[in-house]
Amino acid sequence: MRADSDTVRMAHGGGGLAMRELVRDLFATAFAPLADAHLVLEDAAVLPCPRTSRLAFTTDAFVVEPAFFPGGNIGDLAVNGTVNDLAMMGAKPLFLSSAFVIEEGFAMEDLRRIVGSMAEAARRAEVRVVAGDTKVVPRGRGDGVYIATSGVGEVPEGVSLSASALEPGDRIVVSGPVGDHGVAVMSRRAGLSFEAEVESDTASLAGLVSTMLEAGGRIRAMRDPTRGGLAAALHELAEDSGVSIEVEEAAIPVRPAVRRACDLLGFDPLHVPCEGRLVASLAEDGADEVLAAMRAHPLGRDAATIGRVGGRGKGRVTMRTTVGGTRLVDLPAGELLPRIC
Amino acid sequence: MRADSDTVRMAHGGGGLAMRELVRDLFATAFAPLADAHLVLEDAAVLPCPRTSRLAFTTDAFVVEPAFFPGGNIGDLAVNGTVNDLAMMGAKPLFLSSAFVIEEGFAMEDLRRIVGSMAEAARRAEVRVVAGDTKVVPRGRGDGVYIATSGVGEVPEGVSLSASALEPGDRIVVSGPVGDHGVAVMSRRAGLSFEAEVESDTASLAGLVSTMLEAGGRIRAMRDPTRGGLAAALHELAEDSGVSIEVEEAAIPVRPAVRRACDLLGFDPLHVPCEGRLVASLAEDGADEVLAAMRAHPLGRDAATIGRVGGRGKGRVTMRTTVGGTRLVDLPAGELLPRIC
Repeated sequence: MRADSDTVRMAHGGGGLAMRELVRDLFATAFAPLADAHLVLEDAAVLPCPRTSRLAFTTDAFVVEPAFFPGGNIGDLAVNGTVNDLAMMGAKPLFLSSAFVIEEGFAMEDLRRIVGSMAEAARRAEVRVVAGDTKVVPRGRGDGVYIATSGVGEVPEGVSLSASALEPGDRIVVSGPVGDHGVAVMSRRAGLSFEAEVESDTASLAGLVSTMLEAGGRIRAMRDPTRGGLAAALHELAEDSGVSIEVEEAAIPVRPAVRRACDLLGFDPLHVPCEGRLVASLAEDGADEVLAAMRAHPLGRDAATIGRVGGRGKGRVTMRTTVGGTRLVDLPAGELLPRIC
Repeated sequence: MRADSDTVRMAHGGGGLAMRELVRDLFATAFAPLADAHLVLEDAAVLPCPRTSRLAFTTDAFVVEPAFFPGGNIGDLAVNGTVNDLAMMGAKPLFLSSAFVIEEGFAMEDLRRIVGSMAEAARRAEVRVVAGDTKVVPRGRGDGVYIATSGVGEVPEGVSLSASALEPGDRIVVSGPVGDHGVAVMSRRAGLSFEAEVESDTASLAGLVSTMLEAGGRIRAMRDPTRGGLAAALHELAEDSGVSIEVEEAAIPVRPAVRRACDLLGFDPLHVPCEGRLVASLAEDGADEVLAAMRAHPLGRDAATIGRVGGRGKGRVTMRTTVGGTRLVDLPAGELLPRIC
């Protein structure tokens, strides 16, 4: 049996001494290099307001199971996921908050690793974790740890992206191979191993987006294809803009190991989440420059044009298959990949 | 057995069709009067940046059990709690986000009630819920619903509050009777009923704070005494400022029903959380004006001076008891009142 100090106890969420110590010794220490530790302990962080006319604000809850998977854990996933939601609106991520719901008995060492990964991911994404909260629920009322992160970013003047802004003739690009994160988590969960282990692609897309915005083209919209995968992201763009999208199966990058795992597990790679990829719709004029800028960035080396926006319509997404046919790309019903992020 | 559509299913968190419908039909509809519904469905909300030099940013996770209690539910509690954390820094709350972790099988009708209460609490607090996320975990891996809210506010020029800003000679005031929320939740949980049911005091303190800031005194710091109650809030202020605080037991307002419930349950009312009260440290000069302004506000009618900041020191909090003695006010260890908010 573990010693008391080795696991999270109900008292760590109770508002008393144990909680103050946990916040000071773990959270404030881990995030201190990025933030004035003092701020973390007030009721709200007080921060310099960016000199811009528009803020971006987003939130996500992370319940991934298992919490540790090839290529990452729930901590860096939470930071990168929130950073990416800001980046998809063209915003420069500035500040993050994190709220923990921890199950009683969770190993303190695992919590430390998760918080350490969050701090490292924040450092890489150049954001500051400035506010937090810790709640503890009894055994059997949670599952290890859930993390809700929120983020505030600054939208540069002149940048205006929206899922409803696609225009007929736009070019659809992805920044790299799809499905890595979902396969990494599902294969770990299923206890499967493949000849080449697939790692999660969890990463901050903020730097890549910044490069794309500077490349001079016209980006209409971006999405990071998380839950529901590339298929859901394409559907969202097509529906919100009232256009059709046509993609080429052969042009969509999928790692061979991901494709084999999907065959084995019965998934369509287009339904499998990524956590470090983006799909964008680009005005054809200037699209080559944006694509070149993507390929010059480490996270966009395998960027590819995968299709085109067709005419106005009801949000149909179709795919020309490798055997020359055309099929509808369906929106996943949602049950297939529970707790993937 | 309930029909499928009456409960939350795993698919509602899966990123596919069921989730899109839930977000559109429930969340976007409930929060639409307060926000451009379209914004809610982008990856991040894009918002007008306040014309101020400082933002306030905070987050909280809510795991209260039971989710419905006399005077409120987890929904209005989550909105008010986050609004109050912003208000305690003197900020005007502007935008909220909410992330849900829902247990599979949770009644859709209960979810609707909770979201409705959130929308109503947001309306009262004059904030907009602009971003959200929904995750679903399998039965036995959660407990109904957990909600993490984050908030962004605008700190008016010239306002600077901090738990480290107390000065010897300051006056300590509370805005009303303490312990109502904790007793309301604990008595419901324990299946107790008292001759007069105690209701949670959950409320937005933003209006009261705004009134106090306009009253012309000098507010050093404010706290809403949630987890750990008034005792924890006083400890935080005393420790962070390196001063002692002395309070008068007879001056601390506690409703008779709350006092009786605390006697019965074995709690010290000073350890029992409030969710619509504040404690403040005021420079003596101008304190009468601030107190008068508080009493003129519906949420501060019973505001009272409860003590004073003593000399510099190690953060001791002492209380003159009703029988004329002096005792240390201890910081609760944290186990006593689990899942109270």
